[in-house]
Amino acid sequence: MPTSDKLRLINALAKTGLTDINCASFVNKKKVPQMADAEELAQGITYRDNVRFTGSWLNKSGFERARSTPLHLSPYVFAYASNEFAERNNNMTAEQNLQNQTVLIESYKEAGLVVDTAYIFTAFGSEFGDADPRDCEGTIAKLLDVCAASGASPGLIYLADTVGFANPLLIRRVLDKVMNKWAQLEFALHLHDTRGMGLANVAAALELGVRRFDASIGGLGGCPFAGMKGASGNICTEDLVLMCEEMGIATGIDLDAIIDCAHMAEKIVGHPLPGKTMNAGRIRHVSV
Amino acid sequence: MPTSDKLRLINALAKTGLTDINCASFVNKKKVPQMADAEELAQGITYRDNVRFTGSWLNKSGFERARSTPLHLSPYVFAYASNEFAERNNNMTAEQNLQNQTVLIESYKEAGLVVDTAYIFTAFGSEFGDADPRDCEGTIAKLLDVCAASGASPGLIYLADTVGFANPLLIRRVLDKVMNKWAQLEFALHLHDTRGMGLANVAAALELGVRRFDASIGGLGGCPFAGMKGASGNICTEDLVLMCEEMGIATGIDLDAIIDCAHMAEKIVGHPLPGKTMNAGRIRHVSV
Repeated sequence: MPTSDKLRLINALAKTGLTDINCASFVNKKKVPQMADAEELAQGITYRDNVRFTGSWLNKSGFERARSTPLHLSPYVFAYASNEFAERNNNMTAEQNLQNQTVLIESYKEAGLVVDTAYIFTAFGSEFGDADPRDCEGTIAKLLDVCAASGASPGLIYLADTVGFANPLLIRRVLDKVMNKWAQLEFALHLHDTRGMGLANVAAALELGVRRFDASIGGLGGCPFAGMKGASGNICTEDLVLMCEEMGIATGIDLDAIIDCAHMAEKIVGHPLPGKTMNAGRIRHVSV
Repeated sequence: MPTSDKLRLINALAKTGLTDINCASFVNKKKVPQMADAEELAQGITYRDNVRFTGSWLNKSGFERARSTPLHLSPYVFAYASNEFAERNNNMTAEQNLQNQTVLIESYKEAGLVVDTAYIFTAFGSEFGDADPRDCEGTIAKLLDVCAASGASPGLIYLADTVGFANPLLIRRVLDKVMNKWAQLEFALHLHDTRGMGLANVAAALELGVRRFDASIGGLGGCPFAGMKGASGNICTEDLVLMCEEMGIATGIDLDAIIDCAHMAEKIVGHPLPGKTMNAGRIRHVSV
């Protein structure tokens, strides 16, 4: 995907009402060549008020790369529930990764930043059978302990269903537990629509008051390290927007504009994207 | 789709644990040439115990065609919430269709059959903007009145979301109302995944105790008369099975066998089907 096309898409997305756009991943350029243009991308964006253009990284050097760009920096920490996925995704054990968060927190401090967010990867299970969603609390607690020891206290916790294992009942069970245990924290979801339950999981979480979800335009994406051929993208942004608006939850996003972006993304990647609303269109209501 | 391929698929589906398979539509052969082989299909099926092989029709002559075959006959009546869809789908107004149910009920009586099921088409709205889900009760009541006048009383009511307009909140609101009003009747759903909310709607209905859903293998299908280009198939059978089983609701269906059927269907139609589980596979749980 040429950098110029990515920029065209990002700049179009920024005009839809989205307030937070994750634009680039500062990860190993050799292992993930698709994302090797992170710096160039970050330089090319047409920055505008009221939109945070952010990026991702998995270690200190990735963060330092991001810091050298004009991107908005969201200082986050992360833990893996699956050890096997940790090794494949970040070349270290889940425990090594956990201890390594201290290094990341120190880098944030040097940059004058305060940790605000924590991600729990494979929170609902992994293809390797080594992540138990019943122990999601344990993974969160360990990460919060590491944070506390470094004087950091993230207020927002994203639970990531990295491989689409979650179902509405599991979402409810896990969220009920962690939201009760840490009532002072906000919980959010990073969902993949790998088995078609993406929006069902959103609906279950909406009911519990969750209001932040990661999503990708057209459902674009996947993960090369998830250990499965059918790995699919995040839940689809415009399908999510449509469902929320239909359920009376205002998103501030222009549905027509974001559907246009999905068509643009589909043309850029050159194959059909899994999003549904981009083909089906708006829902026509009976005027009262 | 050659009749022999359809038969191969139906016979494979019958070995998965499914107990009810809708195999053929006895509709206008000129308007829907894809289904012109209904009789031949019905003759070719390998009938087996514990599986009902059924068919659909929209009028008396369709029913008489079905009756001449070895198919299991489910005597049903139906009403349209959308007048425009009634005219496109069945060449008569919604009101004419309603009155016409009397003819159908008489045919059932002649055949020694008792009406057991009623379908409400476009129960959650239509692309023509002329069906109000807030008046779903009204459409059901009118149909039940027509039935009662002919001595028929269906015990199972399917609400059909013909164009994928329903969302989890709407499902809950409509079902709450009709399930309270007719507590003695069973309600079921016929859902299309047109805007990605199919399984989210199932989850909402499961919570209210609904246990019957129409679904299609691989999400195969569509509707030529829905008034939209993005009309898509029913919710996907194997995705539905996976979600139910993951939520602790036993379906009696062999997930691996039904995934195999989805791959068979995909090969037969020659283009990718929307089902997700067929590519992603089972969910791997942590052994306890």
